[in-house]
Amino acid sequence: MHPYRSHSCSALRASDAGTTARLSGWVHSKRDHGGLLFIDLRDETGITQIVIPAGSPVMETAEHVRAESVITVTGEVVLRDEMTRNPELATGDIELRAREFVVQSAAAVLPLQVAGHEHYSDEVRLRYRYIDLRRDKVHRNIRLRSAVIASLRRRMTDLDFIELQTPILTASSPEGARDFLVPARMHPGKFYALPQAPQQFKQLAMVAGFDRYFQIAPCFRDEASRADRSPGEFYQLDFEMAFATQDEIFAVLEDVMSGLFTEFGKGRTVSATPFERIPYARAMKEFGSDKPDLRNPLRITDVTEAFAGSGFGLFARIAADGGEIRAIPAPLAGDKPRSFFDKLNSWARENGGGGLGYITFSAEGGQGPIAKNLEAERVEAIRAKLGLQAGDAVFFAAGKGLEVAKFSGLVRTRIAEELDLIERDAFRFCWVTDFPMYELNEETGLVDFSHNPFSMPQGGLEALNTKDPLDILAYQYDIVCNGIELSSGAVRNHLPEVMIRAFEIAGYPESEVEARFGGMLNAFRYGAPPHGGSAPGVDRMVMLLADEPNIREVILFPLNQQGEDLMMGAPAPVPPERLKELSLAINLPKPKPAVKKD
Amino acid sequence: MHPYRSHSCSALRASDAGTTARLSGWVHSKRDHGGLLFIDLRDETGITQIVIPAGSPVMETAEHVRAESVITVTGEVVLRDEMTRNPELATGDIELRAREFVVQSAAAVLPLQVAGHEHYSDEVRLRYRYIDLRRDKVHRNIRLRSAVIASLRRRMTDLDFIELQTPILTASSPEGARDFLVPARMHPGKFYALPQAPQQFKQLAMVAGFDRYFQIAPCFRDEASRADRSPGEFYQLDFEMAFATQDEIFAVLEDVMSGLFTEFGKGRTVSATPFERIPYARAMKEFGSDKPDLRNPLRITDVTEAFAGSGFGLFARIAADGGEIRAIPAPLAGDKPRSFFDKLNSWARENGGGGLGYITFSAEGGQGPIAKNLEAERVEAIRAKLGLQAGDAVFFAAGKGLEVAKFSGLVRTRIAEELDLIERDAFRFCWVTDFPMYELNEETGLVDFSHNPFSMPQGGLEALNTKDPLDILAYQYDIVCNGIELSSGAVRNHLPEVMIRAFEIAGYPESEVEARFGGMLNAFRYGAPPHGGSAPGVDRMVMLLADEPNIREVILFPLNQQGEDLMMGAPAPVPPERLKELSLAINLPKPKPAVKKD
Repeated sequence: MHPYRSHSCSALRASDAGTTARLSGWVHSKRDHGGLLFIDLRDETGITQIVIPAGSPVMETAEHVRAESVITVTGEVVLRDEMTRNPELATGDIELRAREFVVQSAAAVLPLQVAGHEHYSDEVRLRYRYIDLRRDKVHRNIRLRSAVIASLRRRMTDLDFIELQTPILTASSPEGARDFLVPARMHPGKFYALPQAPQQFKQLAMVAGFDRYFQIAPCFRDEASRADRSPGEFYQLDFEMAFATQDEIFAVLEDVMSGLFTEFGKGRTVSATPFERIPYARAMKEFGSDKPDLRNPLRITDVTEAFAGSGFGLFARIAADGGEIRAIPAPLAGDKPRSFFDKLNSWARENGGGGLGYITFSAEGGQGPIAKNLEAERVEAIRAKLGLQAGDAVFFAAGKGLEVAKFSGLVRTRIAEELDLIERDAFRFCWVTDFPMYELNEETGLVDFSHNPFSMPQGGLEALNTKDPLDILAYQYDIVCNGIELSSGAVRNHLPEVMIRAFEIAGYPESEVEARFGGMLNAFRYGAPPHGGSAPGVDRMVMLLADEPNIREVILFPLNQQGEDLMMGAPAPVPPERLKELSLAINLPKPKPAVKKD
Repeated sequence: MHPYRSHSCSALRASDAGTTARLSGWVHSKRDHGGLLFIDLRDETGITQIVIPAGSPVMETAEHVRAESVITVTGEVVLRDEMTRNPELATGDIELRAREFVVQSAAAVLPLQVAGHEHYSDEVRLRYRYIDLRRDKVHRNIRLRSAVIASLRRRMTDLDFIELQTPILTASSPEGARDFLVPARMHPGKFYALPQAPQQFKQLAMVAGFDRYFQIAPCFRDEASRADRSPGEFYQLDFEMAFATQDEIFAVLEDVMSGLFTEFGKGRTVSATPFERIPYARAMKEFGSDKPDLRNPLRITDVTEAFAGSGFGLFARIAADGGEIRAIPAPLAGDKPRSFFDKLNSWARENGGGGLGYITFSAEGGQGPIAKNLEAERVEAIRAKLGLQAGDAVFFAAGKGLEVAKFSGLVRTRIAEELDLIERDAFRFCWVTDFPMYELNEETGLVDFSHNPFSMPQGGLEALNTKDPLDILAYQYDIVCNGIELSSGAVRNHLPEVMIRAFEIAGYPESEVEARFGGMLNAFRYGAPPHGGSAPGVDRMVMLLADEPNIREVILFPLNQQGEDLMMGAPAPVPPERLKELSLAINLPKPKPAVKKD
């Protein structure tokens, strides 16, 4: 017989009764029951009940074994009484009557319990992550993550993508977030950097003639942590395609995402493909966000015209001043009590709005402070434009440009939440497309890149040479699920002369472009295919599927919020000889002098 | 029609004649042929011949396009004449008559050619890796690597292993090679380290209740490069199994390796499973190496007894002095000319041997200088022990312990090469098992760990407490293919008290063990399953399958031998503000003072 197990802890059934079995696992729980001792023995697959009969020679050992000790038990598989069967357990029809009982590893008193649902601090959970990971929910999350990644790989391979490993010790990225540096011992004073993303390498793979590349790519950013961003490292499904149109890139990711979310969604609805395409400009108008949550049925409507020159002086002045009025419908909210509207008004003031005007509609027409001052035909025009009916209400956000757009987006979300309109159990995907290539830097008054400077401008060199930069759109897009951006992507600019001109518009002379991006620019001078791709975040996908708001719940051994590994003790000081070897010295910031009090 | 391609460059056949097709790819080569222009257009899948008829309106553009430019060609698929068909090309029955000809990306004059087989320096190849990678051989190597990794993943998944991502920003390893350090900006004066291997994390995953883990794991070692070792990073198939015996671990890797090498071996023979198990002690005796190459049919035999007290004084004295005489057979070498033996003798002197004695066998018995002085019955005993016949020869290595063992291993290899005995087109696997737990440090005279201190000693605590440390074996093994070690592995020591005792024997007090390995030791105190695993190197597998002696040939974007990325410019100096942010200062080694000449 195998020294550790003849079966897993989920394998034994009534039909095994009478046979001898050997199981190994962790002591999940122990119960004393009138001289008999019951142990729930757990392995990764399940639980089997062990029974140690009163007076058994192994009782002494079994009695003293602590929860979470690892044991091996050999004995007879016995049918349980009708009364004691457990239909919730796959092995609930039987128990294993212990004849031999070996402690493979005795557990000390535990800093956190595995059985049960007690809450522990992050500090305790991460310091003893190897115990925490035995707990059902987090263990399932990590297995889900593994299955998600395996599924992503299979799906990409089925679509003829090949996985390539791009370097991890590489050059510092010239743009984007802050990267981690690695001192190069053999090159005193010089450093490698860990990749923020394999962006340049995947584009170089295209130049190297690989037609479809992907990678479950580790990425590194030296940024503060957030609930949805782990400090240090994260993984993305990085992919790139040569000779591909934007629509083909979309089709690939739609295929993969709808397949993945259907596979692991546990019956939750997934958007049909093709996913809705929403140009950036429309997204800002209708959703007040470039990350539209399509589970929210409300849409924002521009009603500036209805207020321009109207009797409602506040909005009329805003309209006259070049501002806009946006209307957010609130279906069936017409007969909500006054407090409902007051509460929203207070919320609006707390969240940067001047307040939140509204009209309610009854059979008699529009009601409320705005309706009182607005001409009846204008009230009716608004009602008709939004398709509202008696019993509905509408809220208004007023202001200028991006500010009113974003604020009306907040209102849209808030009202849908208040009215419980957000679709449940659904993954709603969309593309936001046609991002502007440039934006005006409010501080400097100059033109900046609004997103990725390496995207292809729509209209190419001609657009760059003839159009107002602020009117130029890019082949740049985001994929969004339930209001969460999974990834940006772009059809890339593979033409050196277009890239140099694009940077020139943003104020970078050619010499600087050559100095900063020479590696890639050079590559494009030796025959580069048109190409594009995207890189959705793996951790975020798993968070959505596991319905976990905190990224640490879906990572095996995460750093804590301060970027520390409490279990292994990282980061840590290093001996002086290591520093010397790396030609480095520690140069601690000077402590700030105490402020003298007069 | 698709803007770039209706077909790939390997798709068109005679049956497509008469249709319109659009292809995109790289200009592989151009030939002028009496006014007609022929272009071999290449993409990742293959080549199609483009013809531009004399006087075509696109001739002007086509004539000026350089090799490796990216173009899109649209035109009619035309059958080639019987005379000009190319049976070696999948598309050799047709050509595409260009009607439209778009240059997507014009190539500059190339620093290296893609077509042909010209040799270029590593410097040029790595600086322009994106061009180098278009060349057939290296492109196929990288695709092979990708397919190998995908196959490894599939095989491990089929065996119920799940892939987990262990941290890359982690703690400095307390043993092994030198690790790369990463300054922690938020923790002035402290550093992360990149993992030399996920050894501790995979063991912690076992403690966390994952039953079978694997990972295609990036590993990092700050070591000098070698032909088979890339500086910086490499990948291994890291795996670990809970509740597993050594035989089960072997069975997993045998299944995966024999499957993989059969899948990608292109008909080369692969060892049948189970692979031969060779205890370390026997490996050193019979093969003179702990990495036996089983393609070599020769085996080494101890013939000390035949020389002890014999008339051949040199060997008799060595035997009397506690040395050993090893015999290496040389089948059918008996009638080789004297120069054959002289050459081997010189080689032996150059390679640390005192020389290489031999006996040749003819119908009259043993011949040569040794046979002349050795009693006939002793000569006959040697012949009989090695199963030699008239026409064969035997060589002798003499000396002490490991030295003679290793030298006779070199002789075994050399003779097999000279006699062309090494099996071709075969992958011969074996396990070397039962490595000693400890060895004597010749310098200090103290007992050291001979390999991994975390392996389980055979016989456990009792063996540690009762046996001579140098007689204790470990559950430690290597898997070897064609004389190349693919990986070490071990059944791990999961018992804190055994680990503390094992370290004590090697001279480490408990306090030091706790200080250096506290993280893992602690974990083992909360219920650890018996476990073990291995981690064969992915790059080495691909090198074997691709028959490439240099590891850079199987890596997408390798660093050069000096650990530099010439393409992206890494490592590089960083601006002073980055250093300040990291609380670091550069501390360059002082230049050595010039030596004064008198």
